[in-house]
Amino acid sequence: MSLTEPITIAGTAEQTDLQLRGDGGLRHLLTLQGLDRGQIAALLDDAESYLREPGEPVARSEALAGRTVANLFFEPSTRTRASFELAAKRLGADVLNLDVNTSSRKKGESILDTIYTLQAMETDVMVVRDAQAGVPAYIARHVNDTVSILNAGESDLSHPTQGLLDLLTIRRHKSSFDGLAVAIVGDIAHSRVARSAAEGLVTMGVEDLRLVSPPALTPDPGSVPPSAKVLHDLDDGVRGADVVMALRIQRERIANLDGIPGIDEYFASFGVNRERMKLAAPDAIVMHPGPMNRGIEIESTLADSAASVITEQVRNGVAVRMAVLASVVRSRAAR
Amino acid sequence: MSLTEPITIAGTAEQTDLQLRGDGGLRHLLTLQGLDRGQIAALLDDAESYLREPGEPVARSEALAGRTVANLFFEPSTRTRASFELAAKRLGADVLNLDVNTSSRKKGESILDTIYTLQAMETDVMVVRDAQAGVPAYIARHVNDTVSILNAGESDLSHPTQGLLDLLTIRRHKSSFDGLAVAIVGDIAHSRVARSAAEGLVTMGVEDLRLVSPPALTPDPGSVPPSAKVLHDLDDGVRGADVVMALRIQRERIANLDGIPGIDEYFASFGVNRERMKLAAPDAIVMHPGPMNRGIEIESTLADSAASVITEQVRNGVAVRMAVLASVVRSRAAR
Amino acid sequence: MSLTEPITIAGTAEQTDLQLRGDGGLRHLLTLQGLDRGQIAALLDDAESYLREPGEPVARSEALAGRTVANLFFEPSTRTRASFELAAKRLGADVLNLDVNTSSRKKGESILDTIYTLQAMETDVMVVRDAQAGVPAYIARHVNDTVSILNAGESDLSHPTQGLLDLLTIRRHKSSFDGLAVAIVGDIAHSRVARSAAEGLVTMGVEDLRLVSPPALTPDPGSVPPSAKVLHDLDDGVRGADVVMALRIQRERIANLDGIPGIDEYFASFGVNRERMKLAAPDAIVMHPGPMNRGIEIESTLADSAASVITEQVRNGVAVRMAVLASVVRSRAAR
Repeated sequence: MSLTEPITIAGTAEQTDLQLRGDGGLRHLLTLQGLDRGQIAALLDDAESYLREPGEPVARSEALAGRTVANLFFEPSTRTRASFELAAKRLGADVLNLDVNTSSRKKGESILDTIYTLQAMETDVMVVRDAQAGVPAYIARHVNDTVSILNAGESDLSHPTQGLLDLLTIRRHKSSFDGLAVAIVGDIAHSRVARSAAEGLVTMGVEDLRLVSPPALTPDPGSVPPSAKVLHDLDDGVRGADVVMALRIQRERIANLDGIPGIDEYFASFGVNRERMKLAAPDAIVMHPGPMNRGIEIESTLADSAASVITEQVRNGVAVRMAVLASVVRSRAAR
Repeated sequence: MSLTEPITIAGTAEQTDLQLRGDGGLRHLLTLQGLDRGQIAALLDDAESYLREPGEPVARSEALAGRTVANLFFEPSTRTRASFELAAKRLGADVLNLDVNTSSRKKGESILDTIYTLQAMETDVMVVRDAQAGVPAYIARHVNDTVSILNAGESDLSHPTQGLLDLLTIRRHKSSFDGLAVAIVGDIAHSRVARSAAEGLVTMGVEDLRLVSPPALTPDPGSVPPSAKVLHDLDDGVRGADVVMALRIQRERIANLDGIPGIDEYFASFGVNRERMKLAAPDAIVMHPGPMNRGIEIESTLADSAASVITEQVRNGVAVRMAVLASVVRSRAAR
Repeated sequence: MSLTEPITIAGTAEQTDLQLRGDGGLRHLLTLQGLDRGQIAALLDDAESYLREPGEPVARSEALAGRTVANLFFEPSTRTRASFELAAKRLGADVLNLDVNTSSRKKGESILDTIYTLQAMETDVMVVRDAQAGVPAYIARHVNDTVSILNAGESDLSHPTQGLLDLLTIRRHKSSFDGLAVAIVGDIAHSRVARSAAEGLVTMGVEDLRLVSPPALTPDPGSVPPSAKVLHDLDDGVRGADVVMALRIQRERIANLDGIPGIDEYFASFGVNRERMKLAAPDAIVMHPGPMNRGIEIESTLADSAASVITEQVRNGVAVRMAVLASVVRSRAAR
């Protein structure tokens, strides 16, 4: 084990090997790839047990009492960090927030030295967000058996707890994943949200998955499930869909799209709006991972309409993260 | 309800309607305006129940156990944020600190999207500080019935928990508000501290309220209670006063005052000092909201003298915030 | 007591007088100077009681339940702050993190006004890191009897909890301090880590203490124990040593060393590496306070070798800080 070892992107087999214990228990959550339908369904069931009606006291447990959860965000985030922090606190954990910008890495402290420091301080779970692909698996390879790594966003590659919360939100609105048509719309090429959702949806049995993007933002074929249809026409994508998920687009990216000179043209061609939703199934739901660019990738009134489940996604996010935290700690205790 | 709705400043009637429940219970704390003498006295009584002698263990309760309090400071603050954080923790709440600078608002996420996110995460109380007038009421208008908003400083307009802690501090030193002469000194035109204190003092029965400022910092007539006397001579303001409250002045503002070329001249004309306090009542107390500019708006030795109750104000601040937090949660449970 | 009083560096006698109660109990921890062998051993024993085997639940107690610990870092730190935060939380305290940069001091708020504010909020322990020498003792002189000050790093001068964790780490590997040869290597002139370790080691009975630095980084004679040998040849320093502690060097300092034109030359002359460690005792241990500059002051493979106790130092750091926190609170209760 060398600290100068390059950070490489692990393949599915290696990630599966890393993240599952011998008995199938979840040791880390690095990716949804390699989790089977039963494993995902169990996490969703557990998450659902933490949901309460609005106004009721939130679900709390002492499942993580005496445990330490460190939020290690090498890439800034307010929403995801807050979601993990509340999930951990509602399970009774001590939470340590470390806002480590990547510039400190250049000051002679490697990622691993930071990780070993937190490990020596008896941290049980490290929640890691990083702009560089491969970092969560790289860390998981190096920590000892008492530490679990949760991927809270990895470059353009994956965001598994976001994928789980998307699955939970869909499952609560549609009786089954079988026969569902799901459209994911926007900058597919650079979206870790799209990739994790796509992986999860295919595992859960969705056969009609449409990835809709401007031609310049077409994903690499290897980066999305082979069964997914890649489209460039939003009307085609939305037609008959049960679920339409708009992705956040970075404004800078719009500047480089052929034939899309600006925000208004992007909204006209790839904005999810009420008019287009008439093409979808009558009870179709609209999703967005947030934070939204209203009027760019999604029409503001649609985001606030009855079809929108966007705030439910946020609520389900805390529940999913509680389930994942409890799961990794439980799997360790069970050994 | 539209997210592009402009942020307007609510009138007293609307704020009262927003912040009080049908049964008179406190739902939000947006302003001291519209609270009657009994309602304020009840908050002060409750705050007093949390005070302990120095060296005794602090008052703690589980009144907010299982509740989530989010500190949402769109304007930076160390002292007020720390005071709310300790108040919430001593009541058993989970506390989430979000340092959101207003620049992130420009990045396409509206205030309301942030609020809806926190609401979806089952936040019970949001403590909001904002440089823009109208924001606390704007948020209060939009949250659902499970969320309470506490104004922790709103532009130049109001700072109701500061007003309450000032009232509590005065009440503990003077037997009654009746017959008291109170002088507030400094940049009245831009001081939310002065406004909330003035509103509270008049409600509690203070008839001799003096607002002393340089002519260029005279408050708008509509922004202060009609019964308050606006003065520009500090000797006149202090003469016979039972309470003298010095306000923090921003050094930049001094540069623009006619006839006050610098800090020394400001201190000479509007600095509260020991010499001038000889004009006040023999047992007069000296107050300051902090942080102090010693030697500018207040003489350093006066701030540390027996007449000064400045650190008591800080201590009472935690107690007042505990009372307000407990009150809004209790009013919700009681419905 | 005046707030314009200059911040001076307290002598050992005054610091001892400040930090020990009449009955010998620890009121503050400002420095290791003036603590006797029994007092240090008692802290190490107490720290040891908090150590657990990796994988076992961490030690927790309610010794600080209802207490407030404020981390007041006027100089940024991730590791030391995290260590104190976890130590305090594992003892049941409420923790307040204040990232106060020294620039805010210039905005008219003195250190003491910040301290008095925290004291008024009923803070029990303030953990202070400051780039200016004398600040911890200065604060300790001014707080009232209900507040304890812990020095978490004071200029180049001292870092007593680091010294204690170094002592604990050595004690756990060597049966006794008697007869030990210890080498501390690097920028001795500017290292608070070196000073606190040196003071503690001499108190505990180490007679063969070697301080090894480039000539330009020779410490002032008065700043290190008289019994320590100051050397400039690393081979001489390491020969026969039982403990070799490498210090972090700031890269900027290397630029100004005569005859050491760059990083490679520094490593060649003053880097602790496997080759040189062959000169040391066969069971010698290698220490570093972190964060490491691998390949500059320490060879990367040595840092990860069996001789390295660097991550144990981190682990022991939390235990030592728990012991110190519990000790100052206990000494107060016992009065």
